[in-house]
Amino acid sequence: MYTIKELQSIISEEIAKEIIQLNETDPKNLYEPISYALSMGGKRLRPVMVLLAGNLFSESIENAIPAALAIEVFHNFTLLHDDIMDQAELRRNSLSVYKKYNQNIAILSGDAMSIMAYNYLLRCNSSDHTGMIRLFSQTALEVCEGQQLDMDFESIMDVSIPQYMNMIRLKTAVLLACSLKLGALAVNAPEKSADLLYAFGLNLGIAFQIQDDLLDIFANPDKFGKKIGGDIVSNKKTFLLLKALELSDYRLKTTIQDWITRKECDEAIKIQAITGIYNELNIKSITEGYVNEFYQSALDILEEIELPGEAKNEILQLAGMIMTRDH
Amino acid sequence: MYTIKELQSIISEEIAKEIIQLNETDPKNLYEPISYALSMGGKRLRPVMVLLAGNLFSESIENAIPAALAIEVFHNFTLLHDDIMDQAELRRNSLSVYKKYNQNIAILSGDAMSIMAYNYLLRCNSSDHTGMIRLFSQTALEVCEGQQLDMDFESIMDVSIPQYMNMIRLKTAVLLACSLKLGALAVNAPEKSADLLYAFGLNLGIAFQIQDDLLDIFANPDKFGKKIGGDIVSNKKTFLLLKALELSDYRLKTTIQDWITRKECDEAIKIQAITGIYNELNIKSITEGYVNEFYQSALDILEEIELPGEAKNEILQLAGMIMTRDH
Repeated sequence: MYTIKELQSIISEEIAKEIIQLNETDPKNLYEPISYALSMGGKRLRPVMVLLAGNLFSESIENAIPAALAIEVFHNFTLLHDDIMDQAELRRNSLSVYKKYNQNIAILSGDAMSIMAYNYLLRCNSSDHTGMIRLFSQTALEVCEGQQLDMDFESIMDVSIPQYMNMIRLKTAVLLACSLKLGALAVNAPEKSADLLYAFGLNLGIAFQIQDDLLDIFANPDKFGKKIGGDIVSNKKTFLLLKALELSDYRLKTTIQDWITRKECDEAIKIQAITGIYNELNIKSITEGYVNEFYQSALDILEEIELPGEAKNEILQLAGMIMTRDH
Repeated sequence: MYTIKELQSIISEEIAKEIIQLNETDPKNLYEPISYALSMGGKRLRPVMVLLAGNLFSESIENAIPAALAIEVFHNFTLLHDDIMDQAELRRNSLSVYKKYNQNIAILSGDAMSIMAYNYLLRCNSSDHTGMIRLFSQTALEVCEGQQLDMDFESIMDVSIPQYMNMIRLKTAVLLACSLKLGALAVNAPEKSADLLYAFGLNLGIAFQIQDDLLDIFANPDKFGKKIGGDIVSNKKTFLLLKALELSDYRLKTTIQDWITRKECDEAIKIQAITGIYNELNIKSITEGYVNEFYQSALDILEEIELPGEAKNEILQLAGMIMTRDH
């Protein structure tokens, strides 16, 4: 089996090849922004998940490579359009496509990337080709639904924990799950194993997203790439905030809502105040409990897949990378 | 065979069913704008082309219906995102999605429609299912390329006629061609016939688009839905303008360029001036010559397809509807 590092370098080379080709394709104003978006990097965890899943069942991962490219291009399409919607000027310390070029170019390049993802997928030659496209397309639509729910939540005060779980399942988890299953389908893995990998990815994705909310406040500031407390400042409906609202009495709830609706306030004091409430309600350990529960569910599902120990170790290592946000 | 009217009513009913289902699907903020976009109407010429092409080779057009829905949803996706890019507030006399909702909702709903088009296509059960998706996906990317070229032309003065032809081929003609071929593939028509229908549609589409430029100025104002001369006012690089620039001597070229670069001017006088130059250069009849040439090519290709006369009459009737802009 390939190591994760080897898979990362395989996919990086493949993406580099695509970037070269994109730079030679007309119209330049359509394909250069796509090339730029793909060259911004990242740890390529999703396409590595595709390749790793393929490698679990087949020595040759040749046929999983187009599926890995499809997932990476689709993921970057969502980031590109998200940046327009959020008016985000930076992405991985570079100018976002929307800021570097302009909004119209960003809209159209994103549209093209979404279509290109299908074109990559169409290069795979598995026995269940249509099944792969069907899974991908269903997942892509779910990701749009998750993004819409996330936007909806911005203007809804009383989001329930089940509503939140549904949102992160759609926005984040299904694409991780789909990545694993696509890789398996690309090498004609047994259907049952492919389905179990999907379920594994779904639970892992949910654990990852809740963990991501946790890291906004309780991460080690030296290792964390972003500013601590950013979600608090932007009033993001994180798992922590929603759980705190659920558990707080009238007095605390009023205090939280007061902070959220306040127009102007000192950021540091706001972060301190909300973090104080989280501590009072024991939110950190409650959230960690949820993370562990979903992570454990993922591990239990992994147990059920018939695979040699070495293979499982590779998946566990990747899962660990995802959970420690080493990307 | 079904008449065009019957096919229009079949597709209208199918779209109406989809609209009802979309209105019941969550998240509302994602699917309601899609339902709204689809309910704005139009003559549904593209999906009718899909159904008609299927009906040429098969009494039952059941299997072509999902392909027709795919084409219509994709076409409306392009209109939706185009309206954001053009900041167009109206579409078919109603508020555009971007204006009725907001930009972010319009971006995301459009993204979802593009994905939904594939989901519709995945419902077809032809023997060459993958071929259908491949054709659609290739076409979808070409439409994006055409849209980018059209945007590029806004800031380029010296667009050549071949460059213009390439742009309208991508932006308009390939989707008409694809509609016909998809319908044929959906009912397992002979490959050669499907390819000839594609070539027919491509020539028809080019004739249609050049004709569309012509109608901006030389249409009967009573029948024409838009303001006469709108393209002149907006300095659009139409076939007429590019041909006029190609044929004009230094004096005329300077006059045209002067009108295009002028910041403020009386619209009516500008339309009159440019139309005067077109008349001086005989642009109307030259353009009509191009339209007829491509239309005749389409008819010649139609001759090659082995079909009963009745079937060909239906296609000719549809082609006529497209050319007279009766939509």
